[in-house]
Amino acid sequence: MKIYLYGVREDEKGYIKEWEKEHKDIDIDFTHKIFDNKTADLAEGSDGVVLLQTQAYPKTALKKLQDFGISKISVRNVGLDGFDFKDLRDLGFSLTNVPVYSPNAIAEHTIGLTLRLLRRVPEFDQKFADGDFRWFPTIGEEINGKTVGIIGTGHIGSVVARIMMAMGANVVAYDIKPNPYLENLGIYVDSIEDVLKQSDIITLHTPLAKKDLHMIDKLAFSKMKDGVIFINAARGGLVDTDALIAALDSGKVGGAGLDVLESENDVFQKKFDTINDVKDPQFKALINRKNVIITPHTAFYTTTAVHNMVFDSLNDNLKMLQSKAPKYPVDINVE
Amino acid sequence: MKIYLYGVREDEKGYIKEWEKEHKDIDIDFTHKIFDNKTADLAEGSDGVVLLQTQAYPKTALKKLQDFGISKISVRNVGLDGFDFKDLRDLGFSLTNVPVYSPNAIAEHTIGLTLRLLRRVPEFDQKFADGDFRWFPTIGEEINGKTVGIIGTGHIGSVVARIMMAMGANVVAYDIKPNPYLENLGIYVDSIEDVLKQSDIITLHTPLAKKDLHMIDKLAFSKMKDGVIFINAARGGLVDTDALIAALDSGKVGGAGLDVLESENDVFQKKFDTINDVKDPQFKALINRKNVIITPHTAFYTTTAVHNMVFDSLNDNLKMLQSKAPKYPVDINVE
Repeated sequence: MKIYLYGVREDEKGYIKEWEKEHKDIDIDFTHKIFDNKTADLAEGSDGVVLLQTQAYPKTALKKLQDFGISKISVRNVGLDGFDFKDLRDLGFSLTNVPVYSPNAIAEHTIGLTLRLLRRVPEFDQKFADGDFRWFPTIGEEINGKTVGIIGTGHIGSVVARIMMAMGANVVAYDIKPNPYLENLGIYVDSIEDVLKQSDIITLHTPLAKKDLHMIDKLAFSKMKDGVIFINAARGGLVDTDALIAALDSGKVGGAGLDVLESENDVFQKKFDTINDVKDPQFKALINRKNVIITPHTAFYTTTAVHNMVFDSLNDNLKMLQSKAPKYPVDINVE
Repeated sequence: MKIYLYGVREDEKGYIKEWEKEHKDIDIDFTHKIFDNKTADLAEGSDGVVLLQTQAYPKTALKKLQDFGISKISVRNVGLDGFDFKDLRDLGFSLTNVPVYSPNAIAEHTIGLTLRLLRRVPEFDQKFADGDFRWFPTIGEEINGKTVGIIGTGHIGSVVARIMMAMGANVVAYDIKPNPYLENLGIYVDSIEDVLKQSDIITLHTPLAKKDLHMIDKLAFSKMKDGVIFINAARGGLVDTDALIAALDSGKVGGAGLDVLESENDVFQKKFDTINDVKDPQFKALINRKNVIITPHTAFYTTTAVHNMVFDSLNDNLKMLQSKAPKYPVDINVE
C-alpha cells in the first residue's frame, strides 16, 4: 500500500521517515507542492493521500484522485474550510483531520507572551543591548494575584486555565459550552462582558465562527480595565485590529501579545528584504511599541505538535485503507 | 515616633508614601545613601531604622545609632551577612528581616526563562527584526511531557514545582529538607545526582551555603542529559561559570537562562556606555549566544515584591517600637 503526502515542510520530513520506519510494509512518497490540478497526477499509483494547505482543494483535482482509485483523504491540520463537502460526497471520499495536535503548545505560548509583557522583556532586552543593567524603572508585574479572563475553554483554553490557576491567578472564563471540570472550580462568569470588565489579563481561545468576527471591537475594548494585558493566539479575525491600535494609543490596553493578525497572510510565513519592506499598515502600526509582542503564528509550532500532525494523519489514513475505524473521522454529510 | 530608611531606590518611594498615609502618626524620612560611618548621623532623632544594602554594616556606625537611642533595626531583604551578630548583641539591638517577599516573582521568572529558551525566542526575535516571518527551522519544544528537575524546594522551588506540574511536566526534585506537601506527590529523588541525570530542564532554587559553592561544576554538567536546559535564578556562586561555558561550547547544555552570575557585581545594576564596555570575561563569553538568556538579577523585581519588602520591614520596625512581636524577628543569638 502507498500513501502520498502533499505540502510537506522540511520540519515534517523527519517525522514522516520515523513513521515509515515503524510501517515498513507501507510505501510513502511526498512533495512540498500543494495539491491542485497540476500536482494531482503525482498521487497516481497511491492508495491514500495526506494533505495540508490553506488554499482550496479543487473538485477537478479531487476527480483525478477518484480516477486513480483513491478514496481516502487525511488532512494534517484541523481546518476543513478548503473542502466542499458536497464534492467529497459526490466523488465517494472518506476524510479525517487532526482536531487536536497540541493544546499545550498554544497554552504555553500564551503563558510565555503574558510573562514577557508583564516582566517588560522588550524593554529589558533593549537596555541589555545598550549596556544598561539597572532595574529601575523597569519594574515587572506578576500573574500571581491577577484576574485572568479566558474566552473559550476548549482544549487550549482549559490548559491555559489550569496553568494560570497554578500560578496563583484568579481565573474567570466564558464559553458557550462550559467544561464540566472547570465548572466545578466555579470559574465561569455569565457573559463575555463580565470577563472583559473583571480581568487584568484577557486571552482568547475560541475558533473563528462567522458570528465571532471582530468579537473584540471598539465597544469590547471600552469595557476592559485600564492597562489590561490582551493576548490573542487564536484567530486574527476575532479582533478589530484598528480598535486594538486605538486602545493601545489611548493606554486602555497596557500590553498586547499577538500570535495572529487579521492581515497575517500578507506578512507571516514570508521573508522580506528588511522589516521596513512590510507594507501592511496595521502591522506597521503595531510593531515598534515596547508593549506589543508579535509572533508570526508560531504558538502551535513545537516538535510535539508537528509530530502529532504527521503521525495522527498517517495513522488515520492507514486505518481507512485497512478498513478500520480512524481516530478522527470527519462527518462530510453536513453542509 | 520616627523611622528612618537608608538605601532607598526610586521604585520604593511610592510604597513608602503609601505606608506613611496608612500611619499618619509615624514620621518617615529616608535617603538613597547606604548606611555607614558617614551617613549614620542622618538617623539622629529617629526611633528605628530600616536598611537595605549589600555592603557590610560597620560596628562604628551601629554604635552611633546606639548613642542616638536607637535599638530597633529592620532590613528590607532576606540576607543578613552584612551584620556581625556579636556587634548587634553588644550594642543591644533587635533585628528583623523580610525572609519571603515574593516567591512567585522568582518562580514566574523561572518559567518565563524556560519558555523563552524552549521556544527559541532570541532566534525568532532576530528573524522578526530582519523581516523574516517564516517558522522553519526555528521549531520549539514544550514543557509538557518534559522532566523538570528542581534543586531546592523552599518557598520558591515549591511554587516552580506546582506550576511545572500544571504545565504537564514530570517534576523530580531534591532538597535536604523535603517539603511534606511535595513529598506526598512523590516528586523527590534521592540525590542531586538523580536530578542531574533524569532532567530535560534543571532549575536551581537553593540559597548559597558555603558548602554549595560551585554545586554545579564540571562533574555535575557531565552527568546531565545532552542538550539540557539549565536555569539559575538563585545565586551565581552555585555554578562554576567556566564549566557552564564549556558545557555550552560542547553542546551538553542546550540552553541557559541566568538571572545571576558569579561576577554579577561587576556588571549588574551598572550602566555602561555600550555593552562592549563590559570587560568581565565570563559575561562576554556568555552573551551573543542564541541559546543563552541573561537577565540582570531581575527575577525578584516585581511591584508585589518591592511592596512587600517596604511594607513588611516598616510594619516590623513599628511593631518593635511599640513593643509588640514582629512578624519576622531574627535570632541574633547565633553565630
